[in-house]
Parts: sequence; C-alpha cells; structure tokens
Amino acid sequence: MLPKQVRLVEVGPRDGLQNEVAVSLDAKIKLVNQLSRTGLSTIETGAFVSPKWVPQMADSASVFAGIKRKAGIRYAALTPNLKGYEAAKAAGADEVAIFGAASEAFSQKNINCSIDESLQRFAPVLAAAKADGIQVRGYVSCVVGCPYQGDVAPADVARVAKALLDMGCYEISLGDTIGVGTPKTVAAMLDAVLAVVPLEQVAVHFHDTYGQALTNIYTALLRGIAVIDSAVAGLGGCPYAAGASGNVASEDVVYLLNGLGITHGVDLNALAQAGWDICAELGKPVSSKVGLALQAKCLKN
Amino acid sequence: MLPKQVRLVEVGPRDGLQNEVAVSLDAKIKLVNQLSRTGLSTIETGAFVSPKWVPQMADSASVFAGIKRKAGIRYAALTPNLKGYEAAKAAGADEVAIFGAASEAFSQKNINCSIDESLQRFAPVLAAAKADGIQVRGYVSCVVGCPYQGDVAPADVARVAKALLDMGCYEISLGDTIGVGTPKTVAAMLDAVLAVVPLEQVAVHFHDTYGQALTNIYTALLRGIAVIDSAVAGLGGCPYAAGASGNVASEDVVYLLNGLGITHGVDLNALAQAGWDICAELGKPVSSKVGLALQAKCLKN
Repeated sequence: MLPKQVRLVEVGPRDGLQNEVAVSLDAKIKLVNQLSRTGLSTIETGAFVSPKWVPQMADSASVFAGIKRKAGIRYAALTPNLKGYEAAKAAGADEVAIFGAASEAFSQKNINCSIDESLQRFAPVLAAAKADGIQVRGYVSCVVGCPYQGDVAPADVARVAKALLDMGCYEISLGDTIGVGTPKTVAAMLDAVLAVVPLEQVAVHFHDTYGQALTNIYTALLRGIAVIDSAVAGLGGCPYAAGASGNVASEDVVYLLNGLGITHGVDLNALAQAGWDICAELGKPVSSKVGLALQAKCLKN
Repeated sequence: MLPKQVRLVEVGPRDGLQNEVAVSLDAKIKLVNQLSRTGLSTIETGAFVSPKWVPQMADSASVFAGIKRKAGIRYAALTPNLKGYEAAKAAGADEVAIFGAASEAFSQKNINCSIDESLQRFAPVLAAAKADGIQVRGYVSCVVGCPYQGDVAPADVARVAKALLDMGCYEISLGDTIGVGTPKTVAAMLDAVLAVVPLEQVAVHFHDTYGQALTNIYTALLRGIAVIDSAVAGLGGCPYAAGASGNVASEDVVYLLNGLGITHGVDLNALAQAGWDICAELGKPVSSKVGLALQAKCLKN
C-alpha cells in the first residue's frame, strides 16, 4: 500500500559531499540555501567528525553559521560522539544522527569495535540530546550487503534497528551502503525490520551503485514506508568502488513520487537547478537522469 | 507473480547505436560478436531503412555479412517496408521487426501518416515474411507518453498492440520511447495490453531518460512479463533531449534479474566488457551503473 505523502531527507550536503572532492565553504552554503528553497523539510547539512577521518566535513560549523535558515526546515548533522554532538548543538543543528552497522565485519574494519560496543558509545549522545530536547536519528549501514562480509542477514539489521530505537532514536534510516540490494533482498530486510520497528519510524537510504536504488525505494513504498533519504544530483561516490555511482538522486526520487501521485512538497525544477550548480562546482556531470534530461531540454530551448 | 525465466532482447547494436555518433563497421561487428559470446539469445543487429533517415544504420548488410554467427542466437533487423524486408532477408536476418506508434501525433510527425495507415503499410512485409517462414516482431512506440501529444491512453496502446498481433506479429514489444513512465502509468498500460494480448507474447522496452526504466521493468516482471529489451551500456541517447540517457542498460537489467533469482543465461562480466569496449569506441562513459561499478572494481584490482 503506497503512502499518500512522503518526506524526503536530503543528504547531499553531508553524505553526498563527504564522498566527493572537496568544495569551498561558499559552495556548500550556496547548496544548502538553494535546497532550502526547494520545499525540502529536512536537510542533512554537515557532520561533526574528526577532520582527520573526513576532511570534507571539517568546516561544518561554518556551513551551519553561514546558511540562511528557513522556518520549518530541520538542518541535521551527523555526530559520532559527545564531542561531535556538543559541536553540532553549538552550531545550531536541529537534529543529530548516530549510526551503527548491521555487519560485524564492517563495524570492526570501519571503527575497530563490535556493533554492540559502537552502539554503547552513542549512549552519552542520546542522553545529552534527550536533556537538550534534540531529536536523534539512527542510521543502520550495510543493511543488505557489506564490502567485507558479503551478505547481511535481515535479522542482524532488525536487531541493530531495534537497538537504536530502544536507545531513543525517533527514526531509523536503513542504509544500503554499497548499493547491492534488489527488491528480493530489500523486501526480506524491510519485513524483518518492520516486525520490530513501527512503520512510521522507518526510513530508507539507498545508494545507486548498481542502478537498483529506485526499484528498491519502490519496494519500500509498497510497504508504506514514507521517509526517503536521497542526495541532489546523486552526489556521493562509493568509497569501495571509485567512479561508481553514489546516493540515489533526489530528482529521480521526486520524479517517481510525482508519477505515483505521492505528495512531497518539493519543486523538481528548483531541485534540478541546485544539482546542476553543485555539479558545475565539482566539475562533474550530474548523476541524476532526471537532472540530465531536464538540463538537455533547457539547453534545447 | 515474477517469471522464473526471462529472455533478454539486446537492442544495443540497433536501437542503441542508431542514436549515437557513427561508429565504424568493424566496431559494430566486434560489438555483435562480443554480445554473441555473452549467452544472449536475441540480438537486434541492424536496420534496413533509408540511409537518408538513419545514416548510422546504412551498413547493416555489411554488419550481418561480417559477424560470426553463433548457433541458437536470433540476429534480428528492423524493417520499415518491403524493400527493407527483402534486404534484411538477403542479409540473413533471423527475424524482422515492424513498428507502430500508440500516439497519433507521433505517427503524423514521424512518418507523416496515421497509425492505421502506418500499420497497413506493413501488410506486405508480414505477407512476405509469412511466406518465407520468418517471424515478425511488432514494436509499439510511445506507450506511455509522446513528445508531441503528452500522455497516451492505455486503450490506444492496447489497440495498436492487438492490431500488430492480429497482423501476425509473434511478439509485441511495448516501448516507452521517451522514458516518461512510472509504475502507475506503466501498470495501467500493461493491464490494458494484457487484456487483449496473451502474456507470453508481450515484451517491454523501456528507455531510462528519467531513471525509471528498471522500476518499470520490475512492474512488468510482477505481472509475469518475461521478455525484456535492453541495450548494453545503456547505448542510445534520446532524440528529444540530447544528452539524456538512452535505453535501459542490459547490465543493470541482468543485475536486477540475478537479485530476483530469475534465470536469463547471460554472463554479466562478458556483457560489461562488451559495454566498456563499445563506449571506448564511442568516446563516452558507460551509461550503465553496473558497468561503471564493475569497471571501478576492475581498475582497483
């Protein structure tokens, strides 16, 4: 049963730009400001992580300080620990996000600890956010496959999703980090999660590495899931396959939703313009087929 | 209900290259020969049309003469009229294809006659093919939208599909020529066609102009449709939006089918290699996300 309305969570300025070549502070601010005028209600604006790990996000505080905020929009930040949380709060982040892998191998390789240990490390963030009245979103990564262990069992995803929910996350975003899912594996994973997390608290986050993202989103929509993460212009490559595609493009998701008659409040042309501009800044072609098609039409007219 | 097995109809050498910059005869022959070694069972190899209209296909007879045929593969050709049919037959085409638009405006603009008149013109082709024991495939174009009239009614598509069936076509390929379909419009169109054409005789042909092709193919698969047209490397741009994407990429379709557990007999790596090679020849990046991801992995290793 398709939802009547969907909320798009724009992750281009964070998950997208984090995996692109570095861009200037001005370009980042311009991108967020453009996105603020499209009708989007949630924009992941930056991350407060060690600049040694993610140099692309080192200026997130300046991005938050420089943007022109629009009423009704939640400007979110990724916060891996209490230090990051305090910095995000100081920068005025409207909500923060934490994360856990569904793959034990990924957790070990990526942050050198078990999944359970990684979740325990977020406890102080959740406690502080609760005291501050700031909502926390929980990302689960590798929900279908892992670059190190291969297949990931749906039960493992459900366990991590439920743990994040029980810790106090208001929403669980299920991420196919390496984009290997297809409707069969995605449906099995979603059904396992939906057995333990209320439908209203589930979001999906697909990468388009193998071109399957939109079909997987459709699979999620058919289950009534009504929160979708996406990145304008399909920003964000794949750290495990340089040159491959990144996040599913927001423009392509909007086109699908328009076709399905699902409301979302986003202006497709304004979104496409933001995508063209940031890609010009990055010196790369738009990785959104809708963005490309609309651009071709504009050039023709 | 998903089919257990799907037959892929590779249209790259014809529908794909027809909308790309011209490539050499040798490159075309190499492409078809490479595709012949992937496990594909149907390869649309060329078109016998006026070289004034489609100069890219002017050497189709030489392509047919130059390729190394593999037993069990049907090498097909597009034939707009009896002259084209006779040339295709002389070249040794195993089957031929004719076409009709579901949009009256498209038919008028494109070939300057009504849909009914265009179908009547194919009668001699069908009569000759029947006498020769050569099977004829029928393409319906603009099955969801038309660049001139906009929306196309499902009933119009069903009428043309049924007419082609009644004329003797063994299979009807439903083409979203400008790639504007989404699962809602596609489902309505398919249901209208399936009411008048047996499931076993229906194929789908999606263009990926707006990134929706794979989701639309999934919509068709859910209805049991088991013949899918696609082009290696997503060859073929859009004549109505230069720079936009072309046919759905065969590699991406194969990845979807693999994920769904649907057999098809095609070797994905061999297919990807054919895509990389023809794109190197064309001097353009592969327009298949799977092709890009596999290429990135190869370069890494």
